[in-house]
Amino acid sequence: MGNNFGTLFRISTWGESHGGSVGVVIDGCPPGLSLIEEDIQVELDRRRPGQSDITTPRNEPDRVEILSGVYDGLTLGTPIAMNVRNKDARSSAYSEMKLAYRPSHADFTYDAKYGRRMAEGGGRSSARETIGRVAAGAVARKILKEAANIEIVAFVESIQDIRIPESVIDIDRESVEATAVRCPHPETAKAMIERIKQVRSEGDSIGGTIGCNVVGLPAGLGEPVFDRLEADLAKAMLSLPATKGFEVGSGFSGTSLRGSEHNDIFENRDGQIRTRTNQAGGVLGGISSGESLWFRTAFKPTATILREQETVTSSGEPTTLIGKGRHDACVLPRAVPIVEAMTALVLVDHWMRNAAQNDTFKFGK
Amino acid sequence: MGNNFGTLFRISTWGESHGGSVGVVIDGCPPGLSLIEEDIQVELDRRRPGQSDITTPRNEPDRVEILSGVYDGLTLGTPIAMNVRNKDARSSAYSEMKLAYRPSHADFTYDAKYGRRMAEGGGRSSARETIGRVAAGAVARKILKEAANIEIVAFVESIQDIRIPESVIDIDRESVEATAVRCPHPETAKAMIERIKQVRSEGDSIGGTIGCNVVGLPAGLGEPVFDRLEADLAKAMLSLPATKGFEVGSGFSGTSLRGSEHNDIFENRDGQIRTRTNQAGGVLGGISSGESLWFRTAFKPTATILREQETVTSSGEPTTLIGKGRHDACVLPRAVPIVEAMTALVLVDHWMRNAAQNDTFKFGK
Amino acid sequence: MGNNFGTLFRISTWGESHGGSVGVVIDGCPPGLSLIEEDIQVELDRRRPGQSDITTPRNEPDRVEILSGVYDGLTLGTPIAMNVRNKDARSSAYSEMKLAYRPSHADFTYDAKYGRRMAEGGGRSSARETIGRVAAGAVARKILKEAANIEIVAFVESIQDIRIPESVIDIDRESVEATAVRCPHPETAKAMIERIKQVRSEGDSIGGTIGCNVVGLPAGLGEPVFDRLEADLAKAMLSLPATKGFEVGSGFSGTSLRGSEHNDIFENRDGQIRTRTNQAGGVLGGISSGESLWFRTAFKPTATILREQETVTSSGEPTTLIGKGRHDACVLPRAVPIVEAMTALVLVDHWMRNAAQNDTFKFGK
Amino acid sequence: MGNNFGTLFRISTWGESHGGSVGVVIDGCPPGLSLIEEDIQVELDRRRPGQSDITTPRNEPDRVEILSGVYDGLTLGTPIAMNVRNKDARSSAYSEMKLAYRPSHADFTYDAKYGRRMAEGGGRSSARETIGRVAAGAVARKILKEAANIEIVAFVESIQDIRIPESVIDIDRESVEATAVRCPHPETAKAMIERIKQVRSEGDSIGGTIGCNVVGLPAGLGEPVFDRLEADLAKAMLSLPATKGFEVGSGFSGTSLRGSEHNDIFENRDGQIRTRTNQAGGVLGGISSGESLWFRTAFKPTATILREQETVTSSGEPTTLIGKGRHDACVLPRAVPIVEAMTALVLVDHWMRNAAQNDTFKFGK
Repeated sequence: MGNNFGTLFRISTWGESHGGSVGVVIDGCPPGLSLIEEDIQVELDRRRPGQSDITTPRNEPDRVEILSGVYDGLTLGTPIAMNVRNKDARSSAYSEMKLAYRPSHADFTYDAKYGRRMAEGGGRSSARETIGRVAAGAVARKILKEAANIEIVAFVESIQDIRIPESVIDIDRESVEATAVRCPHPETAKAMIERIKQVRSEGDSIGGTIGCNVVGLPAGLGEPVFDRLEADLAKAMLSLPATKGFEVGSGFSGTSLRGSEHNDIFENRDGQIRTRTNQAGGVLGGISSGESLWFRTAFKPTATILREQETVTSSGEPTTLIGKGRHDACVLPRAVPIVEAMTALVLVDHWMRNAAQNDTFKFGK
Repeated sequence: MGNNFGTLFRISTWGESHGGSVGVVIDGCPPGLSLIEEDIQVELDRRRPGQSDITTPRNEPDRVEILSGVYDGLTLGTPIAMNVRNKDARSSAYSEMKLAYRPSHADFTYDAKYGRRMAEGGGRSSARETIGRVAAGAVARKILKEAANIEIVAFVESIQDIRIPESVIDIDRESVEATAVRCPHPETAKAMIERIKQVRSEGDSIGGTIGCNVVGLPAGLGEPVFDRLEADLAKAMLSLPATKGFEVGSGFSGTSLRGSEHNDIFENRDGQIRTRTNQAGGVLGGISSGESLWFRTAFKPTATILREQETVTSSGEPTTLIGKGRHDACVLPRAVPIVEAMTALVLVDHWMRNAAQNDTFKFGK
Repeated sequence: MGNNFGTLFRISTWGESHGGSVGVVIDGCPPGLSLIEEDIQVELDRRRPGQSDITTPRNEPDRVEILSGVYDGLTLGTPIAMNVRNKDARSSAYSEMKLAYRPSHADFTYDAKYGRRMAEGGGRSSARETIGRVAAGAVARKILKEAANIEIVAFVESIQDIRIPESVIDIDRESVEATAVRCPHPETAKAMIERIKQVRSEGDSIGGTIGCNVVGLPAGLGEPVFDRLEADLAKAMLSLPATKGFEVGSGFSGTSLRGSEHNDIFENRDGQIRTRTNQAGGVLGGISSGESLWFRTAFKPTATILREQETVTSSGEPTTLIGKGRHDACVLPRAVPIVEAMTALVLVDHWMRNAAQNDTFKFGK
Repeated sequence: MGNNFGTLFRISTWGESHGGSVGVVIDGCPPGLSLIEEDIQVELDRRRPGQSDITTPRNEPDRVEILSGVYDGLTLGTPIAMNVRNKDARSSAYSEMKLAYRPSHADFTYDAKYGRRMAEGGGRSSARETIGRVAAGAVARKILKEAANIEIVAFVESIQDIRIPESVIDIDRESVEATAVRCPHPETAKAMIERIKQVRSEGDSIGGTIGCNVVGLPAGLGEPVFDRLEADLAKAMLSLPATKGFEVGSGFSGTSLRGSEHNDIFENRDGQIRTRTNQAGGVLGGISSGESLWFRTAFKPTATILREQETVTSSGEPTTLIGKGRHDACVLPRAVPIVEAMTALVLVDHWMRNAAQNDTFKFGK
């Protein structure tokens, strides 16, 4: 259970690392959208391993195949299934993992829950699982872009204590993609890359935060009271591997302010009702306000490290384990397109939900 | 839409502040649970206004009536509807609000979404909406307590910069309830209460963070990949009024650590597989690990302040507005039972989901 | 579980016969619809007992109260909760039922499932449960009527072997309501009424079929492949107490025809693509075709009869039981508004679902 | 939308006839079930075209590939995706269909709904869509068989006026599979086969009814009030292509009986509470009674006939159309495994739902 996401633009994902394939099916995609495999591939390429010298050197092509739902280059309104074959990679790198639980991985909890697991590569708990999300998210992004020119831009905001200056506000896809670390501020990016390389050389790992801005969103999206826009975004982010926190707008730091400092004053700007500041982060009462949506997600340091760690076997015997294989010392650069994908999925779904209730029957309008 | 929560232990809430009533119906409650109105009332009393000298002086009894689903003091397995009548409170305090948008409230976004709203008391966007959650949560707590002796304890961890020392670890319901501010550390509680009174006397407001610990949870709850336990908790918390952030375990501060510092080492403790530390916060790969579950939620300063603020009317005319009525300068003490209620709802639902897949048909067990 | 219905126009019902109340909450109702309690009451009055001399002489007023979601006579877009108090009716008529299982009632299966039940009046398995459906259906009908002038007309088509002639095609609400039995053909109605009275006088009961026509439905409603319009209608009908069958269009009798006889030929009628016949019943491939929707539901004879029947107690001891209390010898006249209500709920939900996918983003339109 | 089915054992299907592939993903399958592709293939082979001289002579192998969720021959508890490649079959047989609407097919309604469709082979509205259902149903059957020895046996009960005698009660998989028409009564089967061949030789088509019996089901499955077992079965059956009716137990014919004739008397049989007759069809109040579940589904005559029919083009121009390609003159023999598959899906889902609410927390047990 728990492998589907969304209410109207609904996705179901499948696949284990080192299994046959990973994929996704979208149910509810609007018909008539132009869609080719390259639309998907461009986002998968941003996620794939081996894309730069600070990511894992594993080099997987991750080629997507659209299995259904598209005809003559246009979506049909029927389910769009997309599949990515895993390379045959049943290396011996994982043989110890069948016995020993990797610290801060999900080996133990999968065993506790299901009574079994695919040990190789983490199976379903591997970050390869996110391929399906990115593929579906690419479709959602295209809808938002073509229907309403909405831009979703995520970026690496901090790695450990290295943080992009608050003064940096011009963040777009080009500036993000300009560096291997996907931080749009070149000097900060440089420091981050150095840190990643240094930590990797020590066989260790690090984490950080990813920021995300959405520009162009209309007011009115989000369903009070449980399916607030920020609630569904929080769920989307915390559903990603290695995430430990989420904040929208002023977030945790806003708790130090007083109401008189924190409140966003309404004003009439060029005939539109806008707020002078945006501590809210673009949502009021769970509904988008028409201001930019902005939020932040915390990623823990990668659990796999190339150092010896104590642990126990599945039968509880003490043992030690050294991470092998080729891993990211810092997952954040590759997580940027994943954050964007999940954001797009939430937004399209909420757009459709809002329209269903408020635009279908137009009483008193 | 968006007024129901949960998959198997499913609740639907209703009601506007200053409307007829607020309430909830639970679908999926196990049969045979002993349940009387007092089980619900005790939690509503922790949430109700007027309970202490640091909450709003509005004094509403908020008496619950069980409308269905209970017979001879036991649940039937059928829907349990519970209703709380609103006191007749159509005061003139809100007459201006029909015209002017209160800053950082949801007046504007409700209008943008639905084309109308109940202005008095915020209507559906009022925190009175949480009464239904607390009532349903009281049932969920009772299930967890009686079936598995699970204790959920939330507490006010910080108000502005006043924060409970990290050394405080003995936190139970008694120590939390011992102070009006629901902070289990008496000295910190005293400072918090003084701060709240001072800020209130200045017509201003403040926010803070609420921590929550769950003790006794077995390993195995949480549904990868989208319905991870922490993902559903994040959604539950961000669905609460005035929340801006969520973190589980090491959260944002964990992003400054290295993997070698952050990883929780497995060990065999008294024949059980446990972790030496619990940076994870009780979840690995979205599944409970058997360690204590702990997380934190950020609440912004109350939007209503008793000071003049600039704003605009619904037609965009500049105006000013002064908060009237009786409001909490700090919502956190009353939010503690709400956080606990949402946590209980998530846990019961996940318990049932996990059992459905893994305990119904026992292949290879 | 299982007490909610619909995806976007979603209802949750509650209540036991002889419990505190029965009711419903609607989540997803469009805002701006004019709605007063009388809109609901008129449909409840068609369902209530004691309305004519062929229904049970129990005389319950079944007054509805709207608890939320309506303000100044217009829906807010927030949940609409509606409640109907049960009269205090804990008569001794049901004391034997605590011990003995009534034949063809759900006493035994409720015990088997939940381990307990409310014996009085059948508890949740009583047809009083349908009050919530009729209340919600009244809102759905109003939406369809006001937004698109769609008319849903159900009628008693047959009682035992007494059947309305096929030549009767002018069926509208007036002709249906003109007789106590809700059969629009006066002579047939007269025969039905006589039969009901005769059977009642013998302490026995009878069943029959209810037909339902929907005029004015546009093409395009229904979601292939699982949520076909006829599939959701079939579910809606078979979810009603005492129903045993459903057929749409030619139904079972169509299985005797050949394709060349059964196929509905397309033609251009006044610039519109229509079918010459309508064996399909208004649906093709699960999607409404723009022709009239018509279907039929079978109701078994009322299980409660005023004759001695053999049965067993909950512990398996043989005993006998005679139906007491005041029951309908034939439920069909009162079931007509219930069939209409469920139909309206299905149609509004599908209207919103279709619009969400196909009208929200208009690619290539 | 509408391409998923089930609540806990949830399937999502995809695929168009003449598109890349058709498939399904199951979310919620219990872990530890032994599963190999042959378990699936055996059911697909019963559904596939070209299996006998009374089905379409198209000879498609329909080989299934399991993409995920199985490891070392056992299910993991993670999603099981299964895919079947379509043969490359973009024949010119369908070129006219791009312009002309086939009578009683879904070409027109797909266009009305989505504004486009894949014309070849009917696209998503083709019965090829049921391959995903049969594949998932094969897993569900295996669960029921291995966990509880439950047998689901569907069979062709009638073709036009040729009907299996009521005296035939020994119906098992062997007797059903013994004839190409899947009617367990040899003489009736012979007459059916002759009729099919005759009708096919005339370029026409016929329909009929499929009965289904489930033996071994425990009491307690089915969720009042909307998700009654028979309601979900009705939906499952009416979601199948070409179906027009459903009845459970006495069904439509039961409407001619009186309550005193129709009621099933409870008795104590060998220490178990059973009913003397089973007019109910194995369900009381929406919940299984422990008696055999039996129901019947009506299939209309195949819409495609090899005769000239009038119709219109998508722009409303009158034209004629003659069915080409290779079609079944009667779909019922191949629909038998599909009916069984949908039944198995409903039962496993309800089994899990019932267990979740009633077996997870055992209050008062």
